[in-house]
Amino acid sequence: MSAAVRIVFCAPGVRPEPWIRELADRLPDAEIFAWSNDQQRAADYAVVWTPPDGFFATQTKLKALFNLGAGVDGLMQVASLTPELPVIRLEDAGMASLMAEYVCQAAIRHARELDAVEADTRTGLWKPRKPTDRADYPVGVMGLGTLGARVAKALSLFDFPVSGWARSAKALAGILCYAGPNELDEFLRSTRILVCVLPLTLDTENILNRENLNKLLPNAYLINVARGGHLVDDDLLVLLDTGRMAGATLDVFREEPLPASHRFWRHPNIVLTPHCSALTQRDKTLAQIAQKIEALERGEPVAGVVQRERGY
Amino acid sequence: MSAAVRIVFCAPGVRPEPWIRELADRLPDAEIFAWSNDQQRAADYAVVWTPPDGFFATQTKLKALFNLGAGVDGLMQVASLTPELPVIRLEDAGMASLMAEYVCQAAIRHARELDAVEADTRTGLWKPRKPTDRADYPVGVMGLGTLGARVAKALSLFDFPVSGWARSAKALAGILCYAGPNELDEFLRSTRILVCVLPLTLDTENILNRENLNKLLPNAYLINVARGGHLVDDDLLVLLDTGRMAGATLDVFREEPLPASHRFWRHPNIVLTPHCSALTQRDKTLAQIAQKIEALERGEPVAGVVQRERGY
Repeated sequence: MSAAVRIVFCAPGVRPEPWIRELADRLPDAEIFAWSNDQQRAADYAVVWTPPDGFFATQTKLKALFNLGAGVDGLMQVASLTPELPVIRLEDAGMASLMAEYVCQAAIRHARELDAVEADTRTGLWKPRKPTDRADYPVGVMGLGTLGARVAKALSLFDFPVSGWARSAKALAGILCYAGPNELDEFLRSTRILVCVLPLTLDTENILNRENLNKLLPNAYLINVARGGHLVDDDLLVLLDTGRMAGATLDVFREEPLPASHRFWRHPNIVLTPHCSALTQRDKTLAQIAQKIEALERGEPVAGVVQRERGY
Repeated sequence: MSAAVRIVFCAPGVRPEPWIRELADRLPDAEIFAWSNDQQRAADYAVVWTPPDGFFATQTKLKALFNLGAGVDGLMQVASLTPELPVIRLEDAGMASLMAEYVCQAAIRHARELDAVEADTRTGLWKPRKPTDRADYPVGVMGLGTLGARVAKALSLFDFPVSGWARSAKALAGILCYAGPNELDEFLRSTRILVCVLPLTLDTENILNRENLNKLLPNAYLINVARGGHLVDDDLLVLLDTGRMAGATLDVFREEPLPASHRFWRHPNIVLTPHCSALTQRDKTLAQIAQKIEALERGEPVAGVVQRERGY
């Protein structure tokens, strides 16, 4: 690689030193520095998470921008992001397995009533439940990209019947795949446990609304590991409070941390976690970014480039 | 099948009617009846769970006995069980997948600190944890029969490094297999999450004792879904209270229900469930037993016959 490659790191709230040090270990010839308002050096590549609007005013010579996550919905809101700049999503980098873990344990715990069983035993109550049949818990996975496909596969290995829905047609072994708006109804009507792994775009915002959730099988359960913007919070609360839905495991919220006054806190049928279903793993993430920078410098194409018109 | 086949059902505490009705649906030519002290009709086959000692005095013409579970340790204690009677264990019948589900969610929740995360959110606290690396959580599965092999495979699909230990040598794709007493130390020394799926025999009783648990990696975690008799309760408590081990998920106990005075209740590092990791599923169980009775009547061999000298 040319010794002239410059990389800027900008992730407010994240301590830059370990990231820069580890990336430098992987790209010893590169010049890597942290962005700041008074740091005006132009870089060839940027590694970012939620950069401030002013970032792009100072970085006008970028060849490509690497996002430190799979979801680029936040980045797409930054007004000064020019439409020409190639934006590259994080692909898997250990996240797919973590997300599959999280979703599987949530689905298993719901189908086995383990939250209730453990709440019993915490109070000294020995009360076994009858076994349940996985055939009664068809799971539908919305979003069948790298993460969604891994989630769907993992669920199917535990005998859950699994279907999937995505914007465009997909083929996945053992997964009944639906595609596009025309097939959404049929997908929802055959689903009891709904898992959202969609990218957040203009098309998918508020897709988990009362109308759509009402199409699910009785006693439906929602697992949202995508973005809070997919879910209409009040619609879920109505469906839970009327007994139309059985419960939800939510890892993402419109505002994070979830505001203290939000009804999701302490709702008896909601398990909530602080956006941790698939945290970015530094080592695997930087290995992927370093490889892609090397490929781009050799003039080779890389995967994960965001298609701006579809939003992911 | 000969119309003369008689089957007796004996499972104290279990309502016999649905079992007899469903078995009759599968074997319409058989004569199937519930055992009672005054029911002295001799049967050809018995379907039992924890039969009373008096059962065998009245059933002296049995060709074979089917146990309604994978573990026959209880049955082997019945003094009047003759050594010649073929005893047939339940094999899988849906239990392997259920046990794999249970163990995976327990291992995932430990490695991700999800119990602590959810305890936080139940009190309104938003406190994400750092991601953990599966390489730091090598899992060791004791017992590699039908159930243990399925458990080991499921864990390996979530990127846990998985090894296994069994009485005799096994070969399982992706699982490092140890065998026999001579290799137990090496197995334990490379394990952080220990999963017990062993049959309970004279050789395995109390195998989860202080000496063996002390060989595990620091901050070890125990998941016991086999039998309470494998674990020396006080040894686990000492290792938890001194911080040598991080915690345990226990589904089985020496006395069930677990006595109210037992220290396992409410121990902060123990998750306990009421022996529900793999409940017998009636439909799959009776399908398996009906098929085996038909095979035996045709003079064919069946799998799952207990080897009395090894105890399972």
